[in-house]
Amino acid sequence: MNDLNTLRSYGSVGNGVVRTAFSDIDMKSRHWLLDQLTTTGLKASIDGVGNVIGKAQDCSRSLLIGSHSDTQPTGGWLDGALGVIYGLEIARTYQETGRLANVGIDVASWMDEEGTYFSSLGSRSFCGEFTDAELLDSRSIQGGRMGDLLRQAGLDDTPRAILDPERYLGYLEAHIEQGPFLEQTGYKIGVVTSIVGVRDFVIHFHGCQNHAGTTPMDLRQDAGMAAIHAAYGLDRMLSKSAREKTVWTIGDIKFHPGAASIVPGGARISFQVRDADEGFLDFVTQEVRVYIEKLDASSKVTLELELLDDSVHAVEMNQRMQDYCARAAERLAPGEWMNMQSGAAHDAQVLAPNIASGMIFVPSIGGISHDFNEDTAEEDIILGCQVMAAAVEAILQDEG
Amino acid sequence: MNDLNTLRSYGSVGNGVVRTAFSDIDMKSRHWLLDQLTTTGLKASIDGVGNVIGKAQDCSRSLLIGSHSDTQPTGGWLDGALGVIYGLEIARTYQETGRLANVGIDVASWMDEEGTYFSSLGSRSFCGEFTDAELLDSRSIQGGRMGDLLRQAGLDDTPRAILDPERYLGYLEAHIEQGPFLEQTGYKIGVVTSIVGVRDFVIHFHGCQNHAGTTPMDLRQDAGMAAIHAAYGLDRMLSKSAREKTVWTIGDIKFHPGAASIVPGGARISFQVRDADEGFLDFVTQEVRVYIEKLDASSKVTLELELLDDSVHAVEMNQRMQDYCARAAERLAPGEWMNMQSGAAHDAQVLAPNIASGMIFVPSIGGISHDFNEDTAEEDIILGCQVMAAAVEAILQDEG
Repeated sequence: MNDLNTLRSYGSVGNGVVRTAFSDIDMKSRHWLLDQLTTTGLKASIDGVGNVIGKAQDCSRSLLIGSHSDTQPTGGWLDGALGVIYGLEIARTYQETGRLANVGIDVASWMDEEGTYFSSLGSRSFCGEFTDAELLDSRSIQGGRMGDLLRQAGLDDTPRAILDPERYLGYLEAHIEQGPFLEQTGYKIGVVTSIVGVRDFVIHFHGCQNHAGTTPMDLRQDAGMAAIHAAYGLDRMLSKSAREKTVWTIGDIKFHPGAASIVPGGARISFQVRDADEGFLDFVTQEVRVYIEKLDASSKVTLELELLDDSVHAVEMNQRMQDYCARAAERLAPGEWMNMQSGAAHDAQVLAPNIASGMIFVPSIGGISHDFNEDTAEEDIILGCQVMAAAVEAILQDEG
Repeated sequence: MNDLNTLRSYGSVGNGVVRTAFSDIDMKSRHWLLDQLTTTGLKASIDGVGNVIGKAQDCSRSLLIGSHSDTQPTGGWLDGALGVIYGLEIARTYQETGRLANVGIDVASWMDEEGTYFSSLGSRSFCGEFTDAELLDSRSIQGGRMGDLLRQAGLDDTPRAILDPERYLGYLEAHIEQGPFLEQTGYKIGVVTSIVGVRDFVIHFHGCQNHAGTTPMDLRQDAGMAAIHAAYGLDRMLSKSAREKTVWTIGDIKFHPGAASIVPGGARISFQVRDADEGFLDFVTQEVRVYIEKLDASSKVTLELELLDDSVHAVEMNQRMQDYCARAAERLAPGEWMNMQSGAAHDAQVLAPNIASGMIFVPSIGGISHDFNEDTAEEDIILGCQVMAAAVEAILQDEG
């Protein structure tokens, strides 16, 4: 709890935290974490994208524990930080209480899971999803060149840490649930079975800007009204085709120029669908494509569908890792845990195809996240750490 | 044409003009106009809200001609400027060619017709719609106090010009059509019969911001989706109840916080209806009110309807003024003019309840306005001025 509160102090604002990736306060907090990991006896460093990685010494195999310590622009104090500090706490306890000879615990805080500049940059870098040249030349979400961002952060001469699959017994990540299920059911621990995939679309509407008083309805090419009709239609379409746990969101809509007395000449919609089944997501993508093409053909406004290429794929958590987490939960919180899917993306989603990965969730009060008011009861935070420690202990003993 | 081009040079950007009310360039252009009116022999001044008014001397009665010389943020070169320069040209010709003894021509350029700070400020001030105290303490559209704005413009010690109804034979305003009718029908002059009324609504939606991945559909209080459904419903409602020339527009929509992965916690819509019949506008206002109350009662999101109090009322143009304009048009453009309603608001709308008012329109190329690309053929600009001059001549001879 002390370490969690110290990390919270980096960027603390009211009950929340503002510690977006690559900000000064984020970089400072990463140096603090580096010191803690070093003190714990790990060989720690900050890599070329800002990942903090502490590696156990004198062992050829290790279990990796981590999450991210960057936050949303107006973020909560536990989102990401919880899993990083669990890693620090469990590694420290393991070092202090006498570790097994051949197997260690590594700890990671990944960079920019929240996608301020590059979604899940740290874990994707670690998993080798791009070359140095591809990374440096890519454009960030904010519009600049990633190479410039890394130079400004003083990381341009630092090598990137890349996954050695031979080393790792597995990857464990703890996280707040960010949803209401655990609280509403009264369970204390969620053992994650899968992480949903995401399809992010942007739909552009090109019409003709005109005067809202003098342009008769039948002569309008109203991009705004076309966007409203399309948004309404997409919602109805998903209402029909959705599976039980599918979620879909129109998170943003913008009109240009966006004034009361002007018929909008342009508009755009952000549309997102999440589901644990990649096949279903592919089906929906096709359904959206056909719908937008149909609207484009039948309307005086031109529509353009963009499928963002950072779409996240649905993954299953490793069954053995799920079993270790479930047994630990049943031992420490008998009858008070549940299997669940994750509706949010996590670094574990990136790591899962490369390392046997598992996740546990602790309850979020009111299901609130990505908000200053995000919180978890202290007893739930502590129980979560004990469950993860128990799972780690079993994994190291069985597989070490 | 020279004067029109000189006025255009104040704030010229590409083919368009940026000369928003109270900007430095707007104030400079008003001083230029003041000089022109003074040279013409009128007693000209800039009043306490920035109106430029040139008054004929040595006469107890006068015909007022004017429009506005402020522009939209990205405006056209003729919107407003055309009618002001017609006034200057006709007054000058009248002074130079020997005027009637007892009757003169006054010229006005009203301030902020476009509503950068206060819609139709100049003509509303002239018509005595508010006291000094009410004006100074009112909030501008940009958020500041009007008193502060006027002080910054150096107008705080200048009296406001107030209409003397005994003086005026009538008010004439020429304007570009800002719509496609004249061009599409091939007519050169529109004689305005009425100006539509406007009802401006803002609808606010208050929901609960949440994570777009972890919040199941049935637990959402999605302000954005509620706004889309309401916008769609309003469009369908108006499609059914609209009269032949009713227009309705959703000119803007905003989600808060407006990110792909966040269920919007708030949203707002700008909704506008225009029609020439006040009774119909009152009916629609009631229809909108009932619809929003019904949605509010049946939805998990809270809706709030705001009817903006600067709503513009529909007015008829004075029949005698219409007749003078029609006769002048038939003389100079036989068979090439039409009666039409104005879908856009104009200063004449404010003046019409106080002075016998008339308006003529000249064609807008492509119907484009409130845009840098707004334009009118030079021969149409000149014909419009000749028609207005002929109408003025007849009014002065008959009524002077």
